[in-house]
Amino acid sequence: MTGKLFGLGVGPGDPELMTLKAVRLLQRVPVIAYPATGDGDSSARAIAAQFVPPGATEIAINVPMRPGRMPTEVYDTAAEDIAGHLADGRDVAVLCEGDPFFYGSFMYLHDRLAGRFPAIVVPGVSSLTACAASSGQPLAGRNAVLTVLPATLDDADLTRRLQNVEAAAILKVGRHLPRLRAVIEDCGLTARAIYVEHASRVDEKVLPLTETNSGDAPYFSMILIASDRDVDRKQARGS
Amino acid sequence: MTGKLFGLGVGPGDPELMTLKAVRLLQRVPVIAYPATGDGDSSARAIAAQFVPPGATEIAINVPMRPGRMPTEVYDTAAEDIAGHLADGRDVAVLCEGDPFFYGSFMYLHDRLAGRFPAIVVPGVSSLTACAASSGQPLAGRNAVLTVLPATLDDADLTRRLQNVEAAAILKVGRHLPRLRAVIEDCGLTARAIYVEHASRVDEKVLPLTETNSGDAPYFSMILIASDRDVDRKQARGS
Repeated sequence: MTGKLFGLGVGPGDPELMTLKAVRLLQRVPVIAYPATGDGDSSARAIAAQFVPPGATEIAINVPMRPGRMPTEVYDTAAEDIAGHLADGRDVAVLCEGDPFFYGSFMYLHDRLAGRFPAIVVPGVSSLTACAASSGQPLAGRNAVLTVLPATLDDADLTRRLQNVEAAAILKVGRHLPRLRAVIEDCGLTARAIYVEHASRVDEKVLPLTETNSGDAPYFSMILIASDRDVDRKQARGS
Repeated sequence: MTGKLFGLGVGPGDPELMTLKAVRLLQRVPVIAYPATGDGDSSARAIAAQFVPPGATEIAINVPMRPGRMPTEVYDTAAEDIAGHLADGRDVAVLCEGDPFFYGSFMYLHDRLAGRFPAIVVPGVSSLTACAASSGQPLAGRNAVLTVLPATLDDADLTRRLQNVEAAAILKVGRHLPRLRAVIEDCGLTARAIYVEHASRVDEKVLPLTETNSGDAPYFSMILIASDRDVDRKQARGS
């Protein structure tokens, strides 16, 4: 009997936004794995810390922060490490910030392992809906089209996609904040743009984009552009 | 002291996909509200049933199913009913399938009440990430743009938006399935399209779009179109 690979979404930051299912599964696995920085910090592990079973084997996947490049060897090595446990019959839970299949690195492990071992993905609260909740504004409703854009796209691509956009979310703002402000202004969307940083965490910040300062932002930050239909709807109600 | 309005995301269907926070808050509120059909069935309440406190006052919001029209009076009446409890100091939890601010009807209550009472939105696992988890394919990764489209858009609009799309999710498929199949085929996307019905529920179904039958689908169904970059990535790995 081989073990099962679990991709566990642990939510956006507040441990209380973990699902009952993620908690239950995490509490009974012998092996956990998670992305970590070079010095061992792991945001996913920190979120789930209180539910990590004592004595679990831990695999910290040290993902170097080189924008635009995928550390193939890091995932190859981690996948083989995980495969060893699975082959020996031990279940492995990979802790994923937010949701495993929504712009997460879990897909690189899933690609390498799901064909060889049973793989179960437990969806989590994504940063997308967590930021909307924090912003106090609906992401999209009824017939609105929602466009999700990574901030890593270049200015021309972002501008093209933001022209006539209905509702949008721009992910992983980080060091891109200054140029995003310019692109959003060029597209005439500044009045509809809300900036959210560290949604659901104790250091959460929600600001109109106009009130952000001109420097960089943390990696876990997002810009939401409310649907113009929603803006109309609220103005019609005077709220 | 007025009460607080909670918009509680209860997730896509499996009660275990509720968050710890939604469960905790639900268990201590004196009043709950939820959308229901004319005969009183409520999917949101069914998901949360085991955590509804005994003796809670329940407000079933009977939303008539008239596609394309918003039952303004229904929400006006429900909002006033809820406002009465809040004004008397009682907290009210509105149960929302999936996530409250992701294509949900909670926004209509939020519009009417959030300016007058403290309102807290607790994000939940959305149908979007639940369907991706069930499909076994990542929604979008790295630099991919994800477009979320309601099936209610007309053929011309859908076709325009699906031309050259990277990754997409089409929500609320229901009776639109036959024409969506045709539009997706016209856009050359059929090979990348996966159909998911009742994600995370016992009657969940996941099929390539080509294997769906030609009739209607349930309201809670979705078509996912995998990112072409992801398809390339998987083919490159031979998986």
